Amino acid sequence: MGTSARADEGMWTFDAFPSAKVAAAYGFRPDAAFLDHIRKSSLRIAGGCSASFVSSQGLVMTNHHCTLDCTSQLSTPEHNYVEQGFYAKTQSDEAKCPGFELDRLDVIEDVTKTVQSATAGKTGRALVDALHAKESALSIGCGRSEAIRCDVVSLYHGGIYKLYHYKRYTDVRLAFTPEYAVAQFGGDPDNFNFPRFDYDCSFVRAYEGGNPAVTPDYLHWSPNGSKAGDLVFVSGNPGATQRLLTVSELTYQRDVALPRTLPNLSELRGILERYQSEGAEQLRETKDSLFGLENSYKALFGREQALLDPAFFAKKVAEERAFRAAVAKRPDLAKTVGGDWDKLAAVERTKHELSYLNSYVANGPSSALFRYARTLVRLPVEKAKPDSQRLPEYSEANLVTLPQRLLAAVPVYSGPEEVGLAYWAKKMREDLGTDDPFVKEVLGAKSPDVWAHDVVAGTNLGDASVRKALYDGGSAGIAASTDTMIAFVLAIEPAARAARKQYEDRVTGPEGALEEALAKARFAVLGTSVYPDATFTARLSYGSVAGFTDGNGKAVAPYTTVGGLYGRATGSEPYALPQTWLTAQGSIDQNTAMDLASTNDIIGGNSGSPLVDKDGDVVGLIFDGNIFSLGGAYGYEPAQNRAVSVDSRAILAGLRSVYHADRLAAEIAP
Amino acid sequence: MGTSARADEGMWTFDAFPSAKVAAAYGFRPDAAFLDHIRKSSLRIAGGCSASFVSSQGLVMTNHHCTLDCTSQLSTPEHNYVEQGFYAKTQSDEAKCPGFELDRLDVIEDVTKTVQSATAGKTGRALVDALHAKESALSIGCGRSEAIRCDVVSLYHGGIYKLYHYKRYTDVRLAFTPEYAVAQFGGDPDNFNFPRFDYDCSFVRAYEGGNPAVTPDYLHWSPNGSKAGDLVFVSGNPGATQRLLTVSELTYQRDVALPRTLPNLSELRGILERYQSEGAEQLRETKDSLFGLENSYKALFGREQALLDPAFFAKKVAEERAFRAAVAKRPDLAKTVGGDWDKLAAVERTKHELSYLNSYVANGPSSALFRYARTLVRLPVEKAKPDSQRLPEYSEANLVTLPQRLLAAVPVYSGPEEVGLAYWAKKMREDLGTDDPFVKEVLGAKSPDVWAHDVVAGTNLGDASVRKALYDGGSAGIAASTDTMIAFVLAIEPAARAARKQYEDRVTGPEGALEEALAKARFAVLGTSVYPDATFTARLSYGSVAGFTDGNGKAVAPYTTVGGLYGRATGSEPYALPQTWLTAQGSIDQNTAMDLASTNDIIGGNSGSPLVDKDGDVVGLIFDGNIFSLGGAYGYEPAQNRAVSVDSRAILAGLRSVYHADRLAAEIAP
Repeated sequence: MGTSARADEGMWTFDAFPSAKVAAAYGFRPDAAFLDHIRKSSLRIAGGCSASFVSSQGLVMTNHHCTLDCTSQLSTPEHNYVEQGFYAKTQSDEAKCPGFELDRLDVIEDVTKTVQSATAGKTGRALVDALHAKESALSIGCGRSEAIRCDVVSLYHGGIYKLYHYKRYTDVRLAFTPEYAVAQFGGDPDNFNFPRFDYDCSFVRAYEGGNPAVTPDYLHWSPNGSKAGDLVFVSGNPGATQRLLTVSELTYQRDVALPRTLPNLSELRGILERYQSEGAEQLRETKDSLFGLENSYKALFGREQALLDPAFFAKKVAEERAFRAAVAKRPDLAKTVGGDWDKLAAVERTKHELSYLNSYVANGPSSALFRYARTLVRLPVEKAKPDSQRLPEYSEANLVTLPQRLLAAVPVYSGPEEVGLAYWAKKMREDLGTDDPFVKEVLGAKSPDVWAHDVVAGTNLGDASVRKALYDGGSAGIAASTDTMIAFVLAIEPAARAARKQYEDRVTGPEGALEEALAKARFAVLGTSVYPDATFTARLSYGSVAGFTDGNGKAVAPYTTVGGLYGRATGSEPYALPQTWLTAQGSIDQNTAMDLASTNDIIGGNSGSPLVDKDGDVVGLIFDGNIFSLGGAYGYEPAQNRAVSVDSRAILAGLRSVYHADRLAAEIAP
Repeated sequence: MGTSARADEGMWTFDAFPSAKVAAAYGFRPDAAFLDHIRKSSLRIAGGCSASFVSSQGLVMTNHHCTLDCTSQLSTPEHNYVEQGFYAKTQSDEAKCPGFELDRLDVIEDVTKTVQSATAGKTGRALVDALHAKESALSIGCGRSEAIRCDVVSLYHGGIYKLYHYKRYTDVRLAFTPEYAVAQFGGDPDNFNFPRFDYDCSFVRAYEGGNPAVTPDYLHWSPNGSKAGDLVFVSGNPGATQRLLTVSELTYQRDVALPRTLPNLSELRGILERYQSEGAEQLRETKDSLFGLENSYKALFGREQALLDPAFFAKKVAEERAFRAAVAKRPDLAKTVGGDWDKLAAVERTKHELSYLNSYVANGPSSALFRYARTLVRLPVEKAKPDSQRLPEYSEANLVTLPQRLLAAVPVYSGPEEVGLAYWAKKMREDLGTDDPFVKEVLGAKSPDVWAHDVVAGTNLGDASVRKALYDGGSAGIAASTDTMIAFVLAIEPAARAARKQYEDRVTGPEGALEEALAKARFAVLGTSVYPDATFTARLSYGSVAGFTDGNGKAVAPYTTVGGLYGRATGSEPYALPQTWLTAQGSIDQNTAMDLASTNDIIGGNSGSPLVDKDGDVVGLIFDGNIFSLGGAYGYEPAQNRAVSVDSRAILAGLRSVYHADRLAAEIAP
């Protein structure tokens, strides 16, 4: 089974890639040209995915599930592209995705000294404010515009700060996406599992000035694909790992956060499952959000399982013990950070105490209408302050992109909004208690259902033109508004801001400062040979095509085949193939590699990442990890953790033999 | 706040009540006459509640939620007694509750030697079989009949065995139950909370030979009720505690069982919440089951919180360490049980490994139709075996009461059955995996929804006469049946029996034997001053009326008032009072005590227990515990754990001023 014993651990930044390590393990040393080629061909999707250019005319490969929002938004009751798939026969048929942004990382600039000198000696709120102010100034300073964005990226929990310069593409159009049924074949039961048989790919195109973007840097299609044992790279934007968390922070996750979050997610899942069963329109409106919710649930459940595994947790305890011992031996470090683990443990107790306050009072419901309303309410208030004193999401830097998100004509469905708000209000009352003043403020004499119905019935914020008018109207417009969601946001604003401030002062601020101090100590002790936690920024991981041994001790091969897909199809959801694939069964080689497993160290956010070989060519498209990859949030286990890709050969065979998408097939593999 | 510092711990059997301890703490020594009077007036409801006679004519007091099944079954779309309440103006209007059984404990017989000699030296399956055989023989031997039942009760996890002789009442009729809205005022958000304002009472009557039962032993109504600090007793049938569990067993609960169970319960909760919102009939059909589910969820969540509390868990660890040290000092015990903690830890690992197998394959879905089918399928097979070799639920002893449960004309609702079965099938596939042979056996090519629809559409087992025909038809009837649920049970029977056997051989059997060995050692070390874990058998607890300090450090008074009920009513569910109470607001003394808190050590199963004073008179009706009582499954914390009762004064005032139920009021308080 090849190289499964190698520890292909790490989500490395492009400017600190361990080429020597790769050379030692695989006999291939990635040079600057190789790394630059991959970085320049890679993309980040602002909503939380990765992608890559696969032609010189701006064609972009990503996952079906990364364009699902777009597909859903383009759909109507007459044309359900989620169900039927979408293919633009000609380039002029390519359809614009509302609010879709692609970012390409062009420059990485070290700003550690600048940031750290701005925050030196500060703690709590002062630290948070100073950091926000400096980040905002740096972002703006790099010449931010519609076409450029700069983000300050904190690596090693503040141990290093970089300024990432991106080229932005905001005119992005859907070229091809398959039917949901084959893209997500196996649905939730197969999610995070392998063997797997999904055709989870999509193609969009970046446009500039109304024409396809000119993209000389793009990934070529491998003529032969990969084989077991091959060295492969994943270029993408892993969202977040927590590998540097202390034992007290992991304990908080295991004993407080996850046991509270998982049952609540499950309840909403049940509500949406039943809601979907009530009609085709209800199904269409919530298919995307239930998919996301089930995916989150399974990922978090997997993390909880990892933390509940005594061996896994013991390893984290041992790592910390070794680090503390190393610090204790160095008088300088012992003096500055020796007490920080205990301080962090105290912060975690406060975090526990304020958990519901932060979740319900500070954050409020997870609702598109609510988010619009809060943004509209806060925007004029924050704009009136000096940049450095604003809530960071309203900094000048963020105001460049905020209008696009706020004003994009994205459909908002009243039914699911009402269901979600009623659920939130019910859980809020359950968790804070009926006698809590915030609960009384929100509900008054209403039941959660009635409250949710009223607040949705009386808002027009689902209409982008209404949002535009309020956006243009500023404070006066907000004050004059009779919109129920605006009224709700205004009513809870004092409590919400106070809760947020308390949480930042007592949790986020001190936690960040202590993490930063420990991260610096970690550099001092362990050197620069380690990689930073993932932060939804560009990373490159290396590994090899390899199977693994599953939970029952059975060997799992690294590839599945198209024939396996047909063999698994029962005709019942989520194992029902669409007619296109049934029709094509005789004309597609059943031995074609379908999906594959590799040892690359990835995590959520890597969806849509290209899997490339040592020639820098596409051999696959990352779309998932196996069940053992879920503990990857906290640590990498080489024996069983596997990344899962659609094989490049299946992608091409599908485009050619199933969809007859010759225009695109010829463009990516001439 | 009276006596909250006293450790009023313990659910004591009537034949080993610590009267001396009570005398020392409270200056009152319960004598044999006092204990006999309370025991003979107390009842167990077979479905899982407690109750008591409160008149000489068989009138029984219990909770509204303990008769909710009956009320629901008596309801029709035209007469929704759950919503409207029920009052039999004359005795002849009292309405029979289908499948309702009351048991009064008459004799307690020690059979420890008999049982232990039958199981001596046996382990695993042989132990389980020998135990079942002996229990069955003892139960039968006591003259079991429609009017008598005898159960072997294992106390101290097999340290002591008693034979409990009960008088059975199977003709039980509903006399009075209030509207759901006031009985469960505050619904799920107020459940397991105090202050509390519920009127959670019901009255049924036991009949014999078509006439009210003659019951000279009954509890008199206290003329004045209770006051803070008063000594009070709770007589009832606490369902189950796990206070003797070892640390490895508690760890299994904390790290495996509860993290798996809670999200699954939550998902079903969400499904049923949404289902209820679809129509009045859907609401009526599932009100009872959703109530039960939410109650279970909150109780289990509370238990998980207790186990996740480091201080609570550390106390259990310290207890075990002390016990192990004591065993280590006694060479006889060290030799026999010194290694048992490690053996039990190994069994818990197996329990983890087989957890899904037991839950899905051995147990199957939680469905009334499935339970009927399985009983009908297994009955002729088991009856053909010698009594000692049967599955214990088909022993001769249990066959006395089985037909009543199987054949009672209880309504079964297809909608909720289908929803519940689809949910089960979905979770089964999720937890066992799509490739699991049992999953394939059950679903074939069907989706869980379609499978559930088909199996419910093709069964007539909801009809009691169909069940009667199959019951009478024996093996031949089953073989000839075309009922889909019978077919499903038959199809999975080999896998289900094999899974059950494996689980019993590797988990239940060894776990029971090790628990029994440790329980015996515990006697040897700690003596007889300790109480046994609860087993849904008659127990008496003592304590005092007392408030407590809540989670935010606020003092909570021991009584609420009727005025508080009106003050809390918003008009919205679950805080909407029914019209009867709104009408009566001017004619009921607002200072009347409504609910009260006391330090009694109780747990689920105690619902419906009378709260009696030292005169043996009714001063309240147990219906709940506060949030701090939920850890009571594993240990009693005197500072905050409180039992919650409806005050006897509120019960009477409600009957008189709200419901004008003068017939009953005069009967209980002439």
